[in-house]
Amino acid sequence: MQIRPGLFRHIAACNARAPGLLAELRADGRVIAWPAPAAAAEIASLPAYFQEIPTGWEFSRNAATTAERSAALEAVAAALRAKGELRPPRGELYAVVAEWGEPPVATLDRSAAVPLGIRCFGVHLNGYVRRADGLHLWVSRRARDKEVAPGKLDNVVAGGQPAFLSLGDNLAKECGEEASFPPELARRAVPVGLVRYCFSTDKGLKPDTLFCYDLEVPDDAVPTPGDDESEGFELWPVDRVMQTLADTDDFKFNVPLVILDFALRHGVLTPETCPEYTAIAAGLRQPFPAPRP
Amino acid sequence: MQIRPGLFRHIAACNARAPGLLAELRADGRVIAWPAPAAAAEIASLPAYFQEIPTGWEFSRNAATTAERSAALEAVAAALRAKGELRPPRGELYAVVAEWGEPPVATLDRSAAVPLGIRCFGVHLNGYVRRADGLHLWVSRRARDKEVAPGKLDNVVAGGQPAFLSLGDNLAKECGEEASFPPELARRAVPVGLVRYCFSTDKGLKPDTLFCYDLEVPDDAVPTPGDDESEGFELWPVDRVMQTLADTDDFKFNVPLVILDFALRHGVLTPETCPEYTAIAAGLRQPFPAPRP
Repeated sequence: MQIRPGLFRHIAACNARAPGLLAELRADGRVIAWPAPAAAAEIASLPAYFQEIPTGWEFSRNAATTAERSAALEAVAAALRAKGELRPPRGELYAVVAEWGEPPVATLDRSAAVPLGIRCFGVHLNGYVRRADGLHLWVSRRARDKEVAPGKLDNVVAGGQPAFLSLGDNLAKECGEEASFPPELARRAVPVGLVRYCFSTDKGLKPDTLFCYDLEVPDDAVPTPGDDESEGFELWPVDRVMQTLADTDDFKFNVPLVILDFALRHGVLTPETCPEYTAIAAGLRQPFPAPRP
Repeated sequence: MQIRPGLFRHIAACNARAPGLLAELRADGRVIAWPAPAAAAEIASLPAYFQEIPTGWEFSRNAATTAERSAALEAVAAALRAKGELRPPRGELYAVVAEWGEPPVATLDRSAAVPLGIRCFGVHLNGYVRRADGLHLWVSRRARDKEVAPGKLDNVVAGGQPAFLSLGDNLAKECGEEASFPPELARRAVPVGLVRYCFSTDKGLKPDTLFCYDLEVPDDAVPTPGDDESEGFELWPVDRVMQTLADTDDFKFNVPLVILDFALRHGVLTPETCPEYTAIAAGLRQPFPAPRP
């Protein structure tokens, strides 16, 4: 399949930067967040928890343990909420880390992740079917009442990665909730890599890592909405998926990156037919910017 | 499989930088090479072909066409050869490009690629077999008289990408020459992405892009040396390959990157069992450094 240009723009959009540079928040010498200006102002007003360094702030000696650092970040979130600048807690904790796999420096309610600019992680599942006429992908239509990207197309299963749950358990949970896939099917999903992007809005920064999984979905396992996240599922030929990516913004903003990674790995895009091939391959794993003041 | 640390070091080694910064050579405003000091000195002595810019040199107006620019680069190579600083031509032309897929700015004999610091490209094939007891990989033992990495382990097929040949044709040619794979088997290889690294020695810089292919090798297609590149082939369980990568330097220096990419894509490495997972994923596609004086 000859792919028209128009695919890389999804990567550029996910990595577009709002103007202005952000300060760092460090723990034990390493950057664990890039707080937006409103959160930075609250950090500056809490010297009991945070002390200034040339590039931003680090936790003070009074915030040395995971519990103390969690309390310090929660104090920032509470101050933002008191001013009407942050919505209520979602009751789902994210781990705050300098890099995946390390012990959490702190935990933070998901609602405060972007204003504080912590690294986020998620799991995305490509549900595919091999047919005589080629590769097909299950796509989900997001519910119309979702806050983020209502009515847009999505991977068959996807979710943010909460603290205190393994990736495999999270994927199995999301598979059950979103697509009614039984656990034994979910366990067949293969981890196939990751994509990274750093999304920036007027609310803050989201340096996001999506762990990608492939699941060959058997014919007798049709995904069915198990909660109110999806309006329904359709099985599309992969060429229709690629053409839709090239021509439209019908997919939720970060989903094209997961599908482009799938397309690279399965020979749907090739270095001989896709003019953006090397840009896409590099763009899916670009380093997080180090936005220093 | 729980993977011990020791895998990322192969990526670090491929990207180790010799001390000192290199000047750029630009064509039409874009960087097409980072010449090593000896080549830079020759460029500086050829003002008919090259003119100085703040970050290095660009082609002069007298070197505006592909033929003229090829002659200009050949003049640099000839001057190096006259001083005994470059070996004889290999008779294989590389395309000089700012990025893959663009029309060549010039061509250059392969022998001069590293001293001039042009971008290089190659094709590497993972030959794998699915067995009841798991995934296996064909590995090649490089001939003991090879100039580069004699006696080291290698992908089943690999080769540099010459000018004026498609990737698919080059892979098919190498499959025949190195492993005696017939063209119809070679055509079944699936392009699955790329890895990038920038190798640096006292001879110069090699900003290299390896296009990766997977080929499921049928039981009746045992690779057999077709030329003098390989001493022979062995089929290894993937766990033995990974343990060898973690513990030894038995593979040719850039081959671990291709195998790590394979391991990421096939769930051999997982984000839950490999402590270096995110570092490896990002490291395989890191941007080429922009080494400016």
